[in-house]
Amino acid sequence: MKGLFITFEGPDGAGKTTQINMLKEYLTSKGYDVVLTREPGGTAIGEKIRNVILDVENKEMDDICEALLYAASRAQHVKQLILPSIDQGKIVICDRFVESSIVYQGYARGLGEDKIEAINNIATRGLVPDVVFLLMLTPEEGIKRKKKSGELDRLEMEKLEFHNRVYEGYNRLKERRKNIFEIDATLDIDDIHNRIVRVVESLLREE
Amino acid sequence: MKGLFITFEGPDGAGKTTQINMLKEYLTSKGYDVVLTREPGGTAIGEKIRNVILDVENKEMDDICEALLYAASRAQHVKQLILPSIDQGKIVICDRFVESSIVYQGYARGLGEDKIEAINNIATRGLVPDVVFLLMLTPEEGIKRKKKSGELDRLEMEKLEFHNRVYEGYNRLKERRKNIFEIDATLDIDDIHNRIVRVVESLLREE
Repeated sequence: MKGLFITFEGPDGAGKTTQINMLKEYLTSKGYDVVLTREPGGTAIGEKIRNVILDVENKEMDDICEALLYAASRAQHVKQLILPSIDQGKIVICDRFVESSIVYQGYARGLGEDKIEAINNIATRGLVPDVVFLLMLTPEEGIKRKKKSGELDRLEMEKLEFHNRVYEGYNRLKERRKNIFEIDATLDIDDIHNRIVRVVESLLREE
Repeated sequence: MKGLFITFEGPDGAGKTTQINMLKEYLTSKGYDVVLTREPGGTAIGEKIRNVILDVENKEMDDICEALLYAASRAQHVKQLILPSIDQGKIVICDRFVESSIVYQGYARGLGEDKIEAINNIATRGLVPDVVFLLMLTPEEGIKRKKKSGELDRLEMEKLEFHNRVYEGYNRLKERRKNIFEIDATLDIDDIHNRIVRVVESLLREE
């Protein structure tokens, strides 16, 4: 039996971590072998690449250099952890994957969605998630959740601009991808979980 | 005045370093501002990436990960050093560039020339050398130069196989590229130097 590859996407604050943990719990209780992972990182080499990306000394880092470093870390992650786990019949759940790069670097930061997609198709060797759960939240709702108040200051207004582009980027991407399953992140936590479980169960039945 | 971007390619042992230094000397004596550089590296961030590539602990490094790391280092090199130097009217001489990645990783190691070319077109932002001096040497001649004897042992026969692929890779590439100027590396050192100078002088007159 081949495993499954499930990823979670969406703006910060949409509740990905909560849902990932609930899904993991559910699948483990059903006897499935679940691998939880995230990017950048997931491997020793990936961690070293991550250190280069996050090194505060590297203020001059070029955007394209950074995008290639993320892709390098992803190539290692796919080859060393994700593909072998799927081949062993495990269910791999990954917190953010290619779609985040396309939306955040390609669209929101303006490097170009096509460029980022081309680099990442090579990095992933064409591996595509069986399903991408996209937890969507309007930018206003996302910031409110973090602040728990209605008023935004100047800095948060700037951030709002960026969050708007991320939101727009996910909306553009979902039109082109059949494996994206969108869920309204303002729904009740258990309601979201149940929708996710229904999709995963149907994928498991197909195997 | 815009500068020039000159790169040197060819198998190991073809005499690139000698010719690069002779060209630098010549251009400096004519009053040109010359920047000599090489890859991977050339910037502080590039050096850090190089350390990840060369780290002996990273035995498990995936080929595609490595190719993306080289490209990341190149993106930084182009953005931070090569493009600004050309814009300042300098003559940049680089020991190996994109062509080495295409031949060594794409062809000789079998990752695919198209893949490596696609990644590097993004990394270089489309920067193409004004001229690529390709110093060509048959694999047999290359190994003989290193050994200074005619007999090859088993290990060297294996290396010969790889050198053959490098030689073949450069031959394939030069058919597709108008900016490659091939020189027989077995010619006399001064003869080679004079051929290089003639090409560079004609490029400088075009400016």
